[in-house]
Amino acid sequence: MSDITTNTPTRLALDAMGGDKAPGEIVLGAIQAAREYGIGVYLVGQEEVLKSELAKHDTTGLDLPIVHTDEAIDMDEHPATAVRRKKNASMTLALQLVRDGKAIGAVSAGNSGAMMAAALFTLKRIPGVERPALGGVFPTKSTPCLVIDVGANTDCKPEYLQQFALMGSVYMERIFHTKKPRVALLANGEEESKGNQQVVETHQLLKRNAERLGLNFIGNIEGREILHPAADVVVCDGFVGNVVLKLSEGIGETLFSMLREEFTSSLISKLAAAVLRPGMRKIYKKLDYAEYGGVPLLGVNGAAIIAHGRSNARAIKNALRVAKETAETGVTQAITEGVAHLAESRADSTPSAL
Amino acid sequence: MSDITTNTPTRLALDAMGGDKAPGEIVLGAIQAAREYGIGVYLVGQEEVLKSELAKHDTTGLDLPIVHTDEAIDMDEHPATAVRRKKNASMTLALQLVRDGKAIGAVSAGNSGAMMAAALFTLKRIPGVERPALGGVFPTKSTPCLVIDVGANTDCKPEYLQQFALMGSVYMERIFHTKKPRVALLANGEEESKGNQQVVETHQLLKRNAERLGLNFIGNIEGREILHPAADVVVCDGFVGNVVLKLSEGIGETLFSMLREEFTSSLISKLAAAVLRPGMRKIYKKLDYAEYGGVPLLGVNGAAIIAHGRSNARAIKNALRVAKETAETGVTQAITEGVAHLAESRADSTPSAL
Repeated sequence: MSDITTNTPTRLALDAMGGDKAPGEIVLGAIQAAREYGIGVYLVGQEEVLKSELAKHDTTGLDLPIVHTDEAIDMDEHPATAVRRKKNASMTLALQLVRDGKAIGAVSAGNSGAMMAAALFTLKRIPGVERPALGGVFPTKSTPCLVIDVGANTDCKPEYLQQFALMGSVYMERIFHTKKPRVALLANGEEESKGNQQVVETHQLLKRNAERLGLNFIGNIEGREILHPAADVVVCDGFVGNVVLKLSEGIGETLFSMLREEFTSSLISKLAAAVLRPGMRKIYKKLDYAEYGGVPLLGVNGAAIIAHGRSNARAIKNALRVAKETAETGVTQAITEGVAHLAESRADSTPSAL
Repeated sequence: MSDITTNTPTRLALDAMGGDKAPGEIVLGAIQAAREYGIGVYLVGQEEVLKSELAKHDTTGLDLPIVHTDEAIDMDEHPATAVRRKKNASMTLALQLVRDGKAIGAVSAGNSGAMMAAALFTLKRIPGVERPALGGVFPTKSTPCLVIDVGANTDCKPEYLQQFALMGSVYMERIFHTKKPRVALLANGEEESKGNQQVVETHQLLKRNAERLGLNFIGNIEGREILHPAADVVVCDGFVGNVVLKLSEGIGETLFSMLREEFTSSLISKLAAAVLRPGMRKIYKKLDYAEYGGVPLLGVNGAAIIAHGRSNARAIKNALRVAKETAETGVTQAITEGVAHLAESRADSTPSAL
C-alpha cells in the first residue's frame, strides 16, 4: 500500500473486480493502457487474485500498484444498498483514490448503477449541478455524437436537461475537440412545437439561454438524425437515452448476425465474404462500443467512467484513456464554471426576459 | 361518382394525392394491389391527374374508381388546422368512404398528423378507448414485433399504455396470427422497479389486470430486445416509440450506406459484393419498411393505415393489404370487445384488489 503515498505523476484507479470478464480482461486492459499511454493504474481488488493475473503477463517497468480489498459489488445487487453496505467495495475505493488526489480518474465495468451511486457518494456533485448524467458516445459515419443522459436519470425536469446540454457541450469540446458543438434536443419532430411536455419546455429554456451559456443550440432532431449526425450533442432524459443506447447496440448486433448468416450460407459466399472482411471489420470497429471505452458520469467532482459490463481488455484500455483525457482536459473544471455561469444568468434574468 | 353507390364486394379507399411520390407511385401501388389481391381501390384526388396516371398503365378488368376532389393536405401543413379547413381533403374523403360503409379501410401516405386527426374526426374513437395509437411493425430476425405507440400520443397516462397493450395484442393475434402475443413494457431495465414513473405505474397496472384482460404480459424489456425479439408487442408512449422507429430506420440506412461504400471501394470488392448481393438483398428486404406497408391507427372505428411519407408503389400495395387484413380479421371489433371488458374489470375491481 506504500505505493499510494508515493508521489507519482499520473495514475488512474481501476475497479479490477468489476465486469463480466473480471478480473482477467480487466487486468489485461490495465496492462495495455499502462504500456500504451505511459500511465500508472491502481488495480483495486483482491490482492492474491490480481497478483496471479499480473503474473500471466510481462509487466516489466509498468506502474500497476495493487490496492487490496475483499469486497466487491455484484452485477445484480441493488446499487444504493450495495454501496451503503460495502464501504470497502473495489469501485468505492477506486473513487476514493480520485477524491483523495491519488488518482486522476476512476473506471469500473461493474454494476453501473452502483458505480453511479458510489461516484455521487464519494466524489459528490459539482456545486450547482442538479443531476449528474451519463454521456454515451455514439459512433456515426463521421464525427461521434454524444447522447446525454443515457441512463442516470429516468424522470427529468427541463432544468436538468438544460444542464445536460451544457455538460455535453463541454465534454465534446474538450475530449473530441469539436468547435462550438451543435447541441440538439431529441424529439419526435424538428418543429419547436414537437416533443412531449418536458421537451417542449426544455426547447424554450434552451432557446432563451443558449447565447448567454455559449451553447450552439440548433433545435430539435429526430431519432433518425442521431447517427447522421445532425448534432454533436443530443440531449434527452435518461429513460429515452437508455432505450436509444440499447436499441442501437441491439440493431447493430442483429444486422451483423444476419450478415454473418448470409455470408456463410455457401462456399462461394464464404470466399466472397473473405474478400470483404477487412472492410467489414473497419465498419464493425467503427461501431464497436469497445473503441469508445466508457461512458463518463458528468457533473461529479472528478473523472468517473462507467465501462460496459461486457468490456474486454480493449474496452478497458480505452475507458482508461477516456478517464485520463477527461481529467487532463479539465472537463470537471469547465463544467463547474459553466454551471456557475448558468446560476448567474438565472440571477440576472428578469421576468421580462421570459 | 356513380361507382360509389354500386354494390361492390370489397373496396379500399386510397388518398391518391398523399405522399412524397404522389400521385405516380401511389396510383401504381393501387393498380398492383387491385391486381394482386383482387380488390377494388377508390382513388381519391384530382380526377384529371389520376386519369392521366391510370392511362400510363394497363388497368383492364381492375376496379379503380376515382373520387374527385381538388383539396389535398400538404406535408408541412399544421395537421388539425388543415383537417378543419379542408373539409374535402383527399384523405378525409377516403376516411368518409370507410365511415359510410363504402370502403373497408383507408390508406394515406400524406401528412401523418393530419391523417390521424382526420381519422379521429371522421371515424371517431371506439367507445372506451382513451387514445388511439399507432402500431409500428418492426422487422426482426424471426417474427415481427409491434411497437405501440410510435407517435400518436407524446404524453401518456398509465391507463393509456394499458390500452395500447390490449390493442397491440389484438392486432398481432389477428394480423400476424401470433398465439397469446407476449406483451412487454419498454424500459431501461428488466426489473419491475425500472422505468420512469409512467412505466413503473403501468407495470403495476398491467401486472394486476393482465389475466382478466387475457394479456400475456411478460414484464419489462430493454431497447436491445426489440429486434431480438423478446416480445411480440412492445408498449411505450408515442414520444419514445417515435424515437425508436426513426432511430431504427436511421441505423439501418447508415449501416447499409457504410457497407455500400466498403463494397465498392475496389474492383475485387465489387466482384465479391456481387456474389453476396442476393443475400444482402434478402436482409434489406426483411428490414425494409415498404414490406410492412403502413402503420395502423388502432382505436378508431375502422381500418385507417398511415403509410410512410416516402412510400413507393410496393409500400402502398402492402399498406392496402394491411388495411384489407385489418378490416377482414375484425381488429376493430376485437378491440371494441377488449376495451368493454377492461371497463367491466375496472367496475368489478374493489380497492382491496389494488
